[in-house]
Amino acid sequence: MDYIYVLDLIGTLVFAMSGALAADEYRLDFFGASVIAFVTAVGGGTIRDVLIGSTPVGWMEDLNYLYCIGAGVVVAWFFKSWVQKLRRTLFLFDTIGIGIFTVLGLTKTLGLGLAPIVALLMGMVSAVFGGVLRDTLTNEIPLIFRREIYATACLSGGLVYLLAQGAGLPDQWCLLLGAGTTIALRVLAVLRGWTLRQ
Amino acid sequence: MDYIYVLDLIGTLVFAMSGALAADEYRLDFFGASVIAFVTAVGGGTIRDVLIGSTPVGWMEDLNYLYCIGAGVVVAWFFKSWVQKLRRTLFLFDTIGIGIFTVLGLTKTLGLGLAPIVALLMGMVSAVFGGVLRDTLTNEIPLIFRREIYATACLSGGLVYLLAQGAGLPDQWCLLLGAGTTIALRVLAVLRGWTLRQ
Amino acid sequence: MDYIYVLDLIGTLVFAMSGALAADEYRLDFFGASVIAFVTAVGGGTIRDVLIGSTPVGWMEDLNYLYCIGAGVVVAWFFKSWVQKLRRTLFLFDTIGIGIFTVLGLTKTLGLGLAPIVALLMGMVSAVFGGVLRDTLTNEIPLIFRREIYATACLSGGLVYLLAQGAGLPDQWCLLLGAGTTIALRVLAVLRGWTLRQ
Repeated sequence: MDYIYVLDLIGTLVFAMSGALAADEYRLDFFGASVIAFVTAVGGGTIRDVLIGSTPVGWMEDLNYLYCIGAGVVVAWFFKSWVQKLRRTLFLFDTIGIGIFTVLGLTKTLGLGLAPIVALLMGMVSAVFGGVLRDTLTNEIPLIFRREIYATACLSGGLVYLLAQGAGLPDQWCLLLGAGTTIALRVLAVLRGWTLRQ
Repeated sequence: MDYIYVLDLIGTLVFAMSGALAADEYRLDFFGASVIAFVTAVGGGTIRDVLIGSTPVGWMEDLNYLYCIGAGVVVAWFFKSWVQKLRRTLFLFDTIGIGIFTVLGLTKTLGLGLAPIVALLMGMVSAVFGGVLRDTLTNEIPLIFRREIYATACLSGGLVYLLAQGAGLPDQWCLLLGAGTTIALRVLAVLRGWTLRQ
Repeated sequence: MDYIYVLDLIGTLVFAMSGALAADEYRLDFFGASVIAFVTAVGGGTIRDVLIGSTPVGWMEDLNYLYCIGAGVVVAWFFKSWVQKLRRTLFLFDTIGIGIFTVLGLTKTLGLGLAPIVALLMGMVSAVFGGVLRDTLTNEIPLIFRREIYATACLSGGLVYLLAQGAGLPDQWCLLLGAGTTIALRVLAVLRGWTLRQ
C-alpha cells in the first residue's frame, strides 16, 4: 500500500502549505508560520493519537512527516506568489489528503479494538481538527463551524469504509471507496456551495 | 452505585444540550453545534483522562455517553423553543452533573494512586473544562474566568469528599457529601450572585 | 544536579507569577488568575508529556511544582505593586526558566528513545507552549507568533545541547551550554529588539 503512504505524505505537505499561507494573512513571522503549518498538518492526527492512547504520537516515529512539513513551509514562505497561482492543484491535494487522513485515522482506531462509531469520529478528527486548531490559534471562530460540509464528507467516507468492510470487500477496496467518497463529497460541496445551515 | 451512573449520563446529556444551545447563538450549523455539544459534555473528562494517562479516554469505552450526547444535540437542535422553557430544570441537572463529574473525576484519579491534591484538581477539571473548551472554541474569554464561583464549588466539594473519606465514612456517603457540597454551593452562588472578583 | 532542579522550580514560580499578572490585565478573578498561572507554568511540559506518552504528566508526580505555582499566584495577586517593581529580576528568572525548561524537555524526550529532531521540538514546546496556551485562553493571538525570537532561542539552545552531547562532553557541560545559549540569545534579542518578521 505504498501509494497510500505517498498520498498521506503529499497531503501533509499540502496541509502545511495551507497553514503557512493562512499564517501569512495574520502577519506572523517565519516561526509563527511554521507552528501554524505544523499544527495544521499533524494536529488532527496528534489529537487522535493522544485520545486513543497511541503515544508517542505518529509523527514522532516517522520523520518523513516532519520533513514534508518543513518542505511545505519553506515553499509556501519563499514562493508565495507562485503557490497562490496553484490554488486549484492545492485544493485537489488538500482534498485527497482529507480523504486519506480520514480512512487512515479510522483504521488505526479500529486496530486498537475500539468501536466502529469511535473509529468514525477519530477518522473525522484526524482529517479536520488540524484546521480547527489552526483557526483557534489564529483566534478565528473555526471555519468548519460556519461553512462547508467538510466534516460531514469525512464521516460519510468513514461510513462507506465501514460498510465496505462489513460487506467483506478486500482492504484496498475499502480504502479506495472510503477515501473516494470523502473526496467526491468535498469537491461536490465546494462546486455547488452546499451547506448544512438551516 | 447505579444511580450515580444514571446521574452521570443525565449530566452528560444536559451538558450536550447546553453546548448545542450555546452553539446556536453563534449561528453554527448542525455539525458545529454537535462538535460544541460533544466538547462541552466530555471535554473535561477527556482532558483529565489524557493527563492522568487513562487512555483510550473514557467515552470511547462506554458508548452510552456518545448516545446521550447524540440525544442531547438532537433535542436541543430540533426543539429549541421547548428546551428554552425548561431553563430551570436544565440548570438543576447541569448542577447535579457538575457535582457528579467532580466526585467521579476525583475518585478515578485517586484510583491511579495519585496524590489527593492532584485528584482535587482533576475533579475540578472534569467538571469545568468542558465549558472552558467550549468558550475557547467559540472564541470567548472563558466565562469561568470572569464570573461565578463555579470551579470553587467543585474544589470545595472535592475537599469535602476527601475529608469524609479521611474520616472513614463509607464510599456512598463520601460521594453524596462531596457532590452535595458542590451542588449546594453552585445553587447558592447563582441565587446570591457571589463572585470572587476583588 | 540539584541546582538544576532548584532553578527549574524557581522558573516554574516565576512563570506562574507572570501568568497571574497577565490574568490581572483581563480583570479575571482569583480563580481565573490561578488557572492562567497554572497553565503558563506547566502547560508546556504538560503538552510535551502528553505527546511523548509520559503520563501521568510530570507535575502530578512531584508536588513541589504545584506548591511553587501556588506560591507564585499568591505573591503575584497580593503583592502586585511590589512584584511589578521587580520586573528586571523576574525577566532574569523567566529567561533562566526558559533555558532550563528547554534542556530538561529535550533530555526527557531523548530518554524515551525518540529522534534528536523530535527532542529539539519537545524542548521548545516545554519552554514556549505554556505562554501560547495562556494567550489562547485569554483570547489573544499568541504573542510568540508575532514578536520576539523567543522560540528560536530555545531551538538554538537545544541544538547546542545536542552538538555538545555529540562531541562527547559530560552531561553537566551539555546542560550548561544548552541552557546558556537559550538564555543569552533571549537576553540579546530583547536588548536589541531582534525579530524574524520579514
